Amino acid sequence: MSSHPTSKRPTGAAFLLAQLGAHAAQRFAERIAILGIAPKHAGILRIISATEDCSQQKLSEMLGVLPSTMVVLIDELDKKGLVQRHRSVKDRRNYALALTPEGIDLLQQLSRLAAEHEADLCVALNSKERVTFAAFCRRIADQQGLTPQVHPGYRNIEGAHR
Amino acid sequence: MSSHPTSKRPTGAAFLLAQLGAHAAQRFAERIAILGIAPKHAGILRIISATEDCSQQKLSEMLGVLPSTMVVLIDELDKKGLVQRHRSVKDRRNYALALTPEGIDLLQQLSRLAAEHEADLCVALNSKERVTFAAFCRRIADQQGLTPQVHPGYRNIEGAHR
Repeated sequence: MSSHPTSKRPTGAAFLLAQLGAHAAQRFAERIAILGIAPKHAGILRIISATEDCSQQKLSEMLGVLPSTMVVLIDELDKKGLVQRHRSVKDRRNYALALTPEGIDLLQQLSRLAAEHEADLCVALNSKERVTFAAFCRRIADQQGLTPQVHPGYRNIEGAHR
Repeated sequence: MSSHPTSKRPTGAAFLLAQLGAHAAQRFAERIAILGIAPKHAGILRIISATEDCSQQKLSEMLGVLPSTMVVLIDELDKKGLVQRHRSVKDRRNYALALTPEGIDLLQQLSRLAAEHEADLCVALNSKERVTFAAFCRRIADQQGLTPQVHPGYRNIEGAHR
């Protein structure tokens, strides 16, 4: 089978990353479903929590989504009672975002689930290997120009209910 | 901001994997678009090439897709002139699959593009680190029970034109 060059080659890191990434995303979505939110919501809550004076506009730029899509996502979090928006004091045309007490509480639960998810996902590695592995991942992400904390999937959200 | 426990924590490996995985998948899709195929086709060509007596049924079991979806995917590859099917000699109810000469040629081009993709994606790591990194990924994938060469995304393909 010498005409089939791929058959004997060990799987490369790029394919393994795509495979593990899809697996990790799926497992995380399943795990947090109990909180009534999807991964896209979890990411937004984390960023609002970590970003001082987080405006709706700043968030849509960070995530690479259209402002109109951002409105829908924030509406969803608003309806769940997790996020409040109020007119920005600095710029009245814009909304400043903050977590509600319920949002802060949910973020803490999310944090625990994320830690469990991480531990389960990386159980094949010992603690020293995990640190090395995460550092390798971080170097690749930085070199590839990925924005910390931002999943590239946001760029593909076009409508409200995906 | 001590009430926001996630804001200071460094990004964990699980999130980085999801982020890098989506990025890798997207870049790979862009890179192979020039060959007129999508990643879902690339994976199938690779598996047909690497699997002795690959039947349509075996393929649908490996990928975790419905037989009806598998028919559509193989139809697409058939129309592109990349795959041939013929009634299996062992089991006349089933189809045996093989790459056409064009399919073998395309797989070789795909192999080159995949190697370039891998090199570009992992440029942040030196060659020794890359070997370690791929080995870590492989151990995680094995422990998580992922089927080698099979992207979990196949399980979400329900219709023909996704």
